[in-house]
Amino acid sequence: SFSRGLQTVTLIPGDGIGPEISTAVMKIFEAAKAPISWEERNVTAIKGPGGRWMIPPDAKESMDKSKIGLKGPLKTPIAAGHPSMNLLLRKTFDLYANVRPCISIEGYKTPYTDVDLVTIRENTEGEYSGIEHVIVDGVVQSIKLITENASRRIAEYAFEYARNNQRNSVTAVHKANIMRMSDGLFLRKCREVAENYKDIKFTEMYLDTVCLNMVQDPTQFDVLVMPNLYGDILSDLCAGLIGGLGVTPSGNIGANGVAIFESVHGTAPDIAGLDMANPTALLLSAVMMLRHMGLHDHGNKIQTACFDTIRDKKVLTKDLGGNSKCSEFTAEICRRIQDMD
Amino acid sequence: SFSRGLQTVTLIPGDGIGPEISTAVMKIFEAAKAPISWEERNVTAIKGPGGRWMIPPDAKESMDKSKIGLKGPLKTPIAAGHPSMNLLLRKTFDLYANVRPCISIEGYKTPYTDVDLVTIRENTEGEYSGIEHVIVDGVVQSIKLITENASRRIAEYAFEYARNNQRNSVTAVHKANIMRMSDGLFLRKCREVAENYKDIKFTEMYLDTVCLNMVQDPTQFDVLVMPNLYGDILSDLCAGLIGGLGVTPSGNIGANGVAIFESVHGTAPDIAGLDMANPTALLLSAVMMLRHMGLHDHGNKIQTACFDTIRDKKVLTKDLGGNSKCSEFTAEICRRIQDMD
Ligand SMILES: CC(C)[C@H](C(=O)O)[C@@H](O)C(=O)O
Ligand SMILES: CC(C)[C@H](C(=O)O)[C@@H](O)C(=O)O
Repeated sequence: SFSRGLQTVTLIPGDGIGPEISTAVMKIFEAAKAPISWEERNVTAIKGPGGRWMIPPDAKESMDKSKIGLKGPLKTPIAAGHPSMNLLLRKTFDLYANVRPCISIEGYKTPYTDVDLVTIRENTEGEYSGIEHVIVDGVVQSIKLITENASRRIAEYAFEYARNNQRNSVTAVHKANIMRMSDGLFLRKCREVAENYKDIKFTEMYLDTVCLNMVQDPTQFDVLVMPNLYGDILSDLCAGLIGGLGVTPSGNIGANGVAIFESVHGTAPDIAGLDMANPTALLLSAVMMLRHMGLHDHGNKIQTACFDTIRDKKVLTKDLGGNSKCSEFTAEICRRIQDMD
Repeated sequence: SFSRGLQTVTLIPGDGIGPEISTAVMKIFEAAKAPISWEERNVTAIKGPGGRWMIPPDAKESMDKSKIGLKGPLKTPIAAGHPSMNLLLRKTFDLYANVRPCISIEGYKTPYTDVDLVTIRENTEGEYSGIEHVIVDGVVQSIKLITENASRRIAEYAFEYARNNQRNSVTAVHKANIMRMSDGLFLRKCREVAENYKDIKFTEMYLDTVCLNMVQDPTQFDVLVMPNLYGDILSDLCAGLIGGLGVTPSGNIGANGVAIFESVHGTAPDIAGLDMANPTALLLSAVMMLRHMGLHDHGNKIQTACFDTIRDKKVLTKDLGGNSKCSEFTAEICRRIQDMD
């Protein structure tokens, strides 16, 4: 598997600390001899024909060809009417599943150990429809849109994911006791799909109950699948359990192999350019990417080197409790990879 | 303050373990000489004129007169079309604020210590509007309704609560980056009301960020105010931090002093009638009730006896880690109250 040709990945370094953590990932990929060639692109939205916001054509073309993106943090747009870049990317490439494995990192202390779960979030509809109205003065409605197709698609993704990743159970997270029709539809599709995966245990749980149980004992959960907003909430909650967004990888998956992997932390403008950033979240996202591309050996190597470095506690960035620079942490991971050969 | 006449409270014992934990609370109130007379009522919904579900007239009348209710757990209705009793009660008495203090209990071990926060949930609208439609086959919408009046009212309640309870800050929890109009309206009202409470620090935070920060360090939070569904989620999450629904009190507050205090755990049918139930959540809810009625001395006494019993670890129900019966735990609290005299 090391002999195949290079595959192109569209690299979106992003803002703030984005460029330096992207550089760290590229160095580590080089040390691991990952057969990737990077095509760097800027995705900051521009106004297209008809005044619609769109990502620049050369970034779109690159993604259309490569199908795979790796993305650092993007700064929140401040211009009125400027869209959230995250939402625009999800929409442009129909990245319908947001996948976040939350696995306790040995040596990085949090109140929890042995967390090992994956949140799978429907990424295209629900509370994120963007449809809102003023009914009368002082009365506003937002519309949550749930469709059969998107619900079936995300349920199928979750069960396939469970099966392909040696996971035993899928929990559908919902509030169908309150939103009987919308969450009811979502839940019904999950139940139907579950019928086709008799090897995977299926359970259903109210979102509030999941939150309560999660902070009491996260080890009871495995794969969780849910509508958009619930995923936004739960994925961040679970990231908190294992140490926060600085160590949590994320993948946005579309049809036909299209996917963008990203760190979900902020741009940290206060430390940008100071060689202090922690590249772990982007690196672990890049490991997810390698596995998605079938490059498991490279992914495993890099992940092992990263986790060993953290467990060893000698060379850590400040946010991880150490006082090393980003470049030193990166070099330590590279050294460990080279030692494996 | 011990000399005033008896005040009537409508007692809704509820189902499952409800009657036995209600008995426990009554015994403890007697030991504390709380000047309360109980009026017991069943609230299970009946079909009224025009086929509308309503709570029985004698329960409604009792509440209308007493204004104050104490309620045990109610079993989830299984009959199709039968309303959630919790929702029906909130609606019938316009209980617009759900208040849940989450305070670490000394001696009851959880991954967190020093939690001391209060969630204040808008209880009447938002995602709980009950308005849903099928748009076309396979496409469903649920409507989230946010009004200026309800948003202002809950914001005012939160700031008043903070001021009256020696709390320093109020955090508005929202997703106005996604639901710009509805959560935007909620947030705007919070900001406006904050202007009138310069003594209280006001902050705003995205719901996902709150969840992440909450599990990393709950001690950073004080009073949190939020729309209905976010409150449903966060209040359960926070309950989990301090030991679950078995130890978390709750109050539903309306206008003009009307309020229902309740334990929010289930009916635990498996242990009902076996003298094994833990009355703590209902008891601490009853303590909130006493304070709401201005009976602070009685409330403090009971709370102290309850917390001392738990800290002491000698007489605990099974779910609290002991092997005493409900009646023994209750007697121990009574004994401690009598010792205070
Ligand atoms: C930035 C924001 C639009 C986004 C969301 O709410 O989905 C973020 O919280 C996320 O989880 O990617
Ligand atoms: C029982 C259910 C209707 C209710 C809710 O969703 O509000 C419950 O979770 C609560 O928090 O009181």
